[in-house]
Amino acid sequence: MNGAQSLLRTLVGSGVRVCFSNPGTSEMHFVAALDDVPEMRSVLCLFEGCTTGAADGYARMTDRPAATLLHLGPGLTNALANVHNARKACTPMLNVVGEHATYHRTKNTPLSSNIEGLARPLSHWLRTTERPADLPRDAAEAVAAALTPPGQIATLVLPADVSWAESVAPAAPLKVPARRSVDEGALAAAAGVLASAGAGGAILLGGVALREGSLAVASRIAAATGARLLCDTFTGRLERGAGRAAVERLPYFAEACASALASVRELVLIGTQAPVPFFAYPNKPSELLAPGCNVHALAAAGDDLHDALVRLADRVGAKAGSERMQARAQLGPSQRPKLDAKAIAETLAARLPEHAIVIDEGGTEAFLTPVMSAGAPRHDWLSNTGGSIGMGLPMAVGAAIACPERTVICLEGDGGAMYTLQALWTQAREGLRVINIVLANRSYRILNVELERVGAEQAGGRARQMLRIDGPTLDFVALATGMGVSAIRAETPSDFDRALTRALAAEGPCLIEAVIGG
Amino acid sequence: MNGAQSLLRTLVGSGVRVCFSNPGTSEMHFVAALDDVPEMRSVLCLFEGCTTGAADGYARMTDRPAATLLHLGPGLTNALANVHNARKACTPMLNVVGEHATYHRTKNTPLSSNIEGLARPLSHWLRTTERPADLPRDAAEAVAAALTPPGQIATLVLPADVSWAESVAPAAPLKVPARRSVDEGALAAAAGVLASAGAGGAILLGGVALREGSLAVASRIAAATGARLLCDTFTGRLERGAGRAAVERLPYFAEACASALASVRELVLIGTQAPVPFFAYPNKPSELLAPGCNVHALAAAGDDLHDALVRLADRVGAKAGSERMQARAQLGPSQRPKLDAKAIAETLAARLPEHAIVIDEGGTEAFLTPVMSAGAPRHDWLSNTGGSIGMGLPMAVGAAIACPERTVICLEGDGGAMYTLQALWTQAREGLRVINIVLANRSYRILNVELERVGAEQAGGRARQMLRIDGPTLDFVALATGMGVSAIRAETPSDFDRALTRALAAEGPCLIEAVIGG
Repeated sequence: MNGAQSLLRTLVGSGVRVCFSNPGTSEMHFVAALDDVPEMRSVLCLFEGCTTGAADGYARMTDRPAATLLHLGPGLTNALANVHNARKACTPMLNVVGEHATYHRTKNTPLSSNIEGLARPLSHWLRTTERPADLPRDAAEAVAAALTPPGQIATLVLPADVSWAESVAPAAPLKVPARRSVDEGALAAAAGVLASAGAGGAILLGGVALREGSLAVASRIAAATGARLLCDTFTGRLERGAGRAAVERLPYFAEACASALASVRELVLIGTQAPVPFFAYPNKPSELLAPGCNVHALAAAGDDLHDALVRLADRVGAKAGSERMQARAQLGPSQRPKLDAKAIAETLAARLPEHAIVIDEGGTEAFLTPVMSAGAPRHDWLSNTGGSIGMGLPMAVGAAIACPERTVICLEGDGGAMYTLQALWTQAREGLRVINIVLANRSYRILNVELERVGAEQAGGRARQMLRIDGPTLDFVALATGMGVSAIRAETPSDFDRALTRALAAEGPCLIEAVIGG
Repeated sequence: MNGAQSLLRTLVGSGVRVCFSNPGTSEMHFVAALDDVPEMRSVLCLFEGCTTGAADGYARMTDRPAATLLHLGPGLTNALANVHNARKACTPMLNVVGEHATYHRTKNTPLSSNIEGLARPLSHWLRTTERPADLPRDAAEAVAAALTPPGQIATLVLPADVSWAESVAPAAPLKVPARRSVDEGALAAAAGVLASAGAGGAILLGGVALREGSLAVASRIAAATGARLLCDTFTGRLERGAGRAAVERLPYFAEACASALASVRELVLIGTQAPVPFFAYPNKPSELLAPGCNVHALAAAGDDLHDALVRLADRVGAKAGSERMQARAQLGPSQRPKLDAKAIAETLAARLPEHAIVIDEGGTEAFLTPVMSAGAPRHDWLSNTGGSIGMGLPMAVGAAIACPERTVICLEGDGGAMYTLQALWTQAREGLRVINIVLANRSYRILNVELERVGAEQAGGRARQMLRIDGPTLDFVALATGMGVSAIRAETPSDFDRALTRALAAEGPCLIEAVIGG
């Protein structure tokens, strides 16, 4: 058994069943080994940014890492932007980066580069396997590292000769460290603070505390203490919708967020950190919490969040049945005259099917969708956690492969769609059930907003031109069709409703270009 | 004057006149300053890999750096693959990477990352400007670093508050180190070696030794000594064609290259290193030079190559007029029955206009084009120097902006085109004279070849599936049209000739999808 075969068997044995791949020559033995290890599904991507975005989406939905297969340093660099997003989401991920043969590495070849140097800033675990006999053990360690709570980025650099040489038997899965149990004293203190703070108390949730079961417990705590229940603005995966516990999402803009937090005197953090503004702005405060607000970091992202919530609920005397459940909203498709952010949000909320997975990289034109869809049937909301644009379409690939029985709806800005548009091809190739909604306002609209907010509102025509993407107009129907995804343009709310209704009834991927203001 | 304004004025004063931009919020003051400094042309790209590919193409044609404008760590990572290629081509480049405000950097925000860590492996010069007053001087240093022979990657990290705060006057351009003059003793030794080696001698040229004037001198040396004149397989810019000195390009595959070098006993290097194979293969030798071949590293890439050649020519008694000039080939469009690599090469060679700039990322289907076009009218040949796929279409943007009066022909594989396809939009937006020829064989054909070469020819259906990109078929006519570039599909040699002839007569960009085997 060569290195590649033993690597693949080790990965499969450790529970890694999907590899999002963009291979080159140095990865040919890995590719050849796919026929020996049919339990590993390899999904071809046309660009490396799609591999890591897909791996992020897959892991968010399964809590298991996917692997990626990348071609040397340049393949890795193309993949890193979505590694950044995954890292911020605490996603487990295993990147396998092919490298020159060990004896060829030291030569100055076109593809030679410092792979470890490039990988280090974004990797929690990083190793180059130097000997074929070490490969299975390294692979098992890499998977365990990826699964170490709350979820980590593992990067395994694989020289070609380590892949092709005779290796040893696959390694058994390694034990993954358990989530740490929260200290009893800290729990007692938090319980005391919440009990006495009443409406001045708040619980801010992040990470896996945003799953249905944990949210319900948190909601009981809020009911028992009078505290508000908040969640991060950008969450890896939020289980929400009618019949689930309601949670207030912190607003994106710093002023709105500070205003939402103005009355909070005692803030208990569970699975997240104290809120910070996305950007700093000239002459605007960078502080979101009210002066004197006390912050209690009860549980870090890697702690046992559900256990912490259950024990906290006991301490405050929370009662089952006291949850503030989200009511089912009676919604119909939008009756607005023009297709705008509100019309999109209304129609989407009305049509959202049960158990949909919504991927939100819709930018300004999707701002209202989380608000309007709160009372839609239960669904999962996956946000851009790292601010690196280009996660949406690839994440839809990974989420759809993780959950083939569910409908994935990807809200994507037109600017954002152009970073990793190649993911559409993989959606078509794999026949994935994804409805891509491109919100086409034909500008980097958020930057027009930000231009004012940074105090550069005196900007002239040359500056404004850098924020416009309307010359030429991007034709997303042509772009999607060119990659084998059926597509339709919607210019009115009724167009959009009709297109969405049809898409929901169809198989396979499709794309709706929603022309904003049309 | 704020930091951004002083930065832009310093860049313009130092000769940087184009910035390929993909900005975000932290770069809004840089963008706003564009209206104050009209001498700086900002070219919007929809993906960061296009900015650095374009900057590479621009600098290869002008020998001046372009700037890029990138949005924090993720923007930088998306740009790095083409930085890798540029670095291997010794291209001068200045990347300006926006960063959070200095007081915001330490917070764990969605976009916070270790920008310097990500930039370091590929940057020759790297600095974060900490104080607004330092920005102009840092910018001038960055440009000088980029221009330091043979050409370097400079990365300037620009915190948002350094950009928006009051700064000082622009800095004057800094003196750039001159190219080093080659040592007289080394010249004498090389001259002696070549004079005595006769047909066993060879001169291998790289870098700026591949410009017309230097090539002519090198050709005289070859004529006087009997040495062969060789050049690297992948060159940043090779000036070639009828009426210029002929030079043998080393073949890509190691066996062919070793065979080409088999008779060389004394190899003199001018502006390059001794040849190394692109990849290593199991049970194949990694050595390209014949046993006992002596290597004489006369001039490194950053040395004064033209001066070295002139002095070497004097020493060996080379005579003006003795150059082996490339004859003009009498070529007509291909008469082959099917559209294949040879038909493409024949027709392209027949139609190539004088002073064309050919960008070669055509892969397997373009292998014959350099051979067939040797006797075409004089033109420049720009190759992929770093093996990172996705340089072609962006490089065409930069080359066309550098040389608006010339025709740019971009040979691109269908697989390769999908890495940075977004560059087509910028070609359309800027109205650039680029003819994109996508060689559509609907597979990663090179990898089918490499699969055999690495000894994995027993690969089965699942492996082969990873090398096919025909399901669904990519429709490049639709894809180009979707980005505002007019496009046509050619399925026969006469289709292709007609499309190319029409494209050469037209203004603005176009794309020809050449269906191989059609």
